[in-house]
Amino acid sequence: MSGFAAVDVIRTKRDRGELSGEQIDWVIGAYTRGEVAEEQMSALLMAILLNGMTGAEIAHWTTAMINSGIRMDLSRVGRPTVDKHSTGGVGDKISLPLAPLVAACGAAVPQLSGRGLGHTGGTLDKMESIAGWRATMSPAEMIAQLSSVGAVICAASADLAPADRKLYALRDVTGTVESIPMIAASIMSKKIAEGTASLVLDVKVGSGAFMKDAGRAAELARTMVELGARAGVRTSALLTDMSTPLGRAVGNAVEVAESVEVLAGGGPADVVELTVALAREMVALAGLDADPAAVLASGRAMDSWRAMVAAQGGDPDAALPTPRYTEQVSADESGVIQRVDALAVGVAAWRLGAGRERREHDVQAAAGILCLVTPGDTVTVGQPLFELHTDTADRFPAALANLAGAVVVGSPDDAVERPPLVMDVIRQH
Amino acid sequence: MSGFAAVDVIRTKRDRGELSGEQIDWVIGAYTRGEVAEEQMSALLMAILLNGMTGAEIAHWTTAMINSGIRMDLSRVGRPTVDKHSTGGVGDKISLPLAPLVAACGAAVPQLSGRGLGHTGGTLDKMESIAGWRATMSPAEMIAQLSSVGAVICAASADLAPADRKLYALRDVTGTVESIPMIAASIMSKKIAEGTASLVLDVKVGSGAFMKDAGRAAELARTMVELGARAGVRTSALLTDMSTPLGRAVGNAVEVAESVEVLAGGGPADVVELTVALAREMVALAGLDADPAAVLASGRAMDSWRAMVAAQGGDPDAALPTPRYTEQVSADESGVIQRVDALAVGVAAWRLGAGRERREHDVQAAAGILCLVTPGDTVTVGQPLFELHTDTADRFPAALANLAGAVVVGSPDDAVERPPLVMDVIRQH
Repeated sequence: MSGFAAVDVIRTKRDRGELSGEQIDWVIGAYTRGEVAEEQMSALLMAILLNGMTGAEIAHWTTAMINSGIRMDLSRVGRPTVDKHSTGGVGDKISLPLAPLVAACGAAVPQLSGRGLGHTGGTLDKMESIAGWRATMSPAEMIAQLSSVGAVICAASADLAPADRKLYALRDVTGTVESIPMIAASIMSKKIAEGTASLVLDVKVGSGAFMKDAGRAAELARTMVELGARAGVRTSALLTDMSTPLGRAVGNAVEVAESVEVLAGGGPADVVELTVALAREMVALAGLDADPAAVLASGRAMDSWRAMVAAQGGDPDAALPTPRYTEQVSADESGVIQRVDALAVGVAAWRLGAGRERREHDVQAAAGILCLVTPGDTVTVGQPLFELHTDTADRFPAALANLAGAVVVGSPDDAVERPPLVMDVIRQH
Repeated sequence: MSGFAAVDVIRTKRDRGELSGEQIDWVIGAYTRGEVAEEQMSALLMAILLNGMTGAEIAHWTTAMINSGIRMDLSRVGRPTVDKHSTGGVGDKISLPLAPLVAACGAAVPQLSGRGLGHTGGTLDKMESIAGWRATMSPAEMIAQLSSVGAVICAASADLAPADRKLYALRDVTGTVESIPMIAASIMSKKIAEGTASLVLDVKVGSGAFMKDAGRAAELARTMVELGARAGVRTSALLTDMSTPLGRAVGNAVEVAESVEVLAGGGPADVVELTVALAREMVALAGLDADPAAVLASGRAMDSWRAMVAAQGGDPDAALPTPRYTEQVSADESGVIQRVDALAVGVAAWRLGAGRERREHDVQAAAGILCLVTPGDTVTVGQPLFELHTDTADRFPAALANLAGAVVVGSPDDAVERPPLVMDVIRQH
C-alpha cells in the first residue's frame, strides 16, 4: 500500500497543493526505512524544486528529517552554545579562527563539519593537515571538550538526521540539489539536531558560491532564519561576498597556516574582517558582552586554538605539510587587477588535489593555491599572480587551464567594483 | 560518466530548456539498457510533466521509443492498413464491431490491443470471453490474417517500443502518468512501430475518461495527430463523449454480446453511431470509397467478425459465459434520467471482477453491468436501473456502493443536457 500512498503525496505537490504534516512525516520516515522507492522520492523532489513549498511545509520537512535520527543535548556544557554554518566558499577557512575566537569570548562552539565535495573544500579536510588531529569524537568527548576548551571542530555523527544523508545522495544524481526548501531543510535539520542554542549562517553569494544570485541567497537565508525561529534556535544570517577567494590561501594546509596568522594578529584583512563580523553576531546571540576584536588582539583566541587542536590529538607546533611541486602563474599584461574569479581558483585548487571528485577519494593536505594579488592591486608583466601547490605534477595542466582568464587586468583608470564583504544581515524579528 | 550526463539532461528540462535530439536518443537508449537509473528518469519525467515539451521534443521522444524495439512491415498485406486507438472508456467495445466492419469495407485493420488495468476495461479481456479465442499471434500469422480476413485483434509484441513498457511502469508509481507529451508518445510510438499506414484516434472526454476536460483532450488529440503527420502516418482524431457509458453493456462477455448485436444490425444507437463514425474516418484515410453504414446493414461486417474470430481459434457460435450471481439496482424515485455516470459504472464493473487491480490478476469473463436506462428515459420507483453480474457474490457490496448516486433522476420538466457523442474531429492539414 505504500506505493499508493507515495503516489498520492507526489500528486499533491505535482498539482501545487500543500503537503500536510502527516504526509511529510510519513514520506520521510518511509523513505528512510526504504519503504518509499528512490524513484518515487526523486519525482517528489523534482515537484518540490519546481513548485516550491510553503514555510509550514519546509518546517515540517525539517522536523521530520531531525526525527529520523538522534537529537543531541548540549545543556550540560555549562556555557551558551552557538554555532556557525557556511554555505561554502573558496578559501573559506573562517571556521578555523572563528571557533576558538568565540570560545575565548565565553561561548561553546559545537562546530560539526563535513568533508569537501567539489570546489568549495571541507573544514575537516583542512584540519586533517595538522599532524595527529582527529575528526571523530564521541558525544561525551565532544561535550567534555565544549565545557573545558569551549570549541570543537569534528565530524557529524551518522545518527544526526540520517534522512538528510540519503536524500542528499539522491538529489545529487537527479538534478534536484538546487531547491531552496531542500537546501534549507538539509542545513537546518543537522544544526537543530546538533543541539546548539544559537546559530549564525554565512550565506555566500557570487561566482565561487553555490548561490550565484543575491536574491536567491537572501531567500535561502530568510528561509533558514525562519526555520531556526520555529525550532527555538536563535538564528541570524550574514550574506557575504564570494566573487573573490577569501584571503590568499585556497586548499588545506595553506588555509590552516593562514588561519594561524589571523589568530596571531595578522593575516589578510578580509579574513580578519569576516571572522570578527561573524564572531560579533555569535557573541550577541549567545548573550555575551565580549568584544571579539579585542579578544583576538589579546592572544586568547590563539590559546583556545592550541587547546582545541591538542584536545583532539593534534600538535599545534608541528610543521604543516609542504607540496612536492609548485608552479607560478604570472601576469601577461600590466595594469590594475579588476577581478580574481573565485570559481576558477576553487576549481583549479580542486584539480590540484585539494578537493575530491568522489566521496571515497582522499585529498592532498599540501595541495592548493596562493593568490598573490587581489582586486585593486597594481601588477606589471611577469609579476606572479598565483602559486600552485600539488604532490602530483600531472595535475598542473588542468589547474592552469582553469586559471586562464581567472584574473582580469584593467587600466589604472578603470574603477574596481567590489561588493562589500558583508552584504546584508538577516535577523529574527 | 552516464550519471553526469543524465543529470545534465534532467537540468536542461528542469530549467525549461529544450532537449536536443541527441539528448533524447541517449537518455531513452541508456534508460532502456539500464544505464540511466530509475530515479534519474523519474526526476526527468516530473520535469517534463511540469515544464512541458515542444513539438520537436515530443517527436524525438516518440522516435527514440520506436527505435528501442522493432518496427513491423505491413507492406505485404495487400490492402490499405488502418488502425484505431481509443484512450479508454466505460463500455467501449467499439474495436469489436469496428475492426471487422472496416475489413469488410476493404481495408486491413491491425488492431494490436492491451489488457485492462483499472476501470476502463481491455479489448483482449473482452475477446477472451469467446471460447477458444487466443490473443497471441506471431507477426507472420498476423500478416497472413490481415491479408485474408482483413482484421486482427491481438496482443502487441513485447518487441514493439519496449522503452514504453519500462517508462509506463515507472510513470505509474511516480505520479507522472498525467503528462500529455508522455501519453501522446506512449500511444503513438506503439502505433507507428506497428506499421499501420493510417490511424484514427478516439480521444474520450468526460467522467469515465482519463481526460475529464475537453481542453486537455483536444490538446492530446492535436499532439498525436501532429506526431502521426511527422512519422508519415495519416492520422485523425475524434473527440467523443465519455460522461455516460457507451451502450448498455459494461464488462467482458456482455460487451461481446452487444458487439454481435451491432454486427447483426441491432444494438444500442450510440454504439452504432460511434462505430460508423470511426469507420467512415478510417475508410476515408485508407482511400476507400465504401459506405460503412451500408456495409454494416449488408451483413458483410458480421461475416468478417466470424472469420476473424475463427482464424484465431475462437468459436463464433459458442455460448458466452454467464454469471453465477446477478443482482438488480432499482430506482428509488420516479422521473426522468438526467445522468448515468460513466466513472461510477466503470468502477462498479471493475469491482465485480470485470477488470483487474494488478497486472498479474485475472478477470472474470462473466462479470459486468447492464445499464437498463439512459439519460432521457422516464423511470418509476422500483424500476430496475442496473443488472450486476459476477461469479463472486462478496463483490456486490463494493459495486453497489460505487453505484450509489451514479444515476440522477430529475423532474419531467428538467432539460436533459447531453453533449453530442462525436464532439469534434481533428485532422491533419
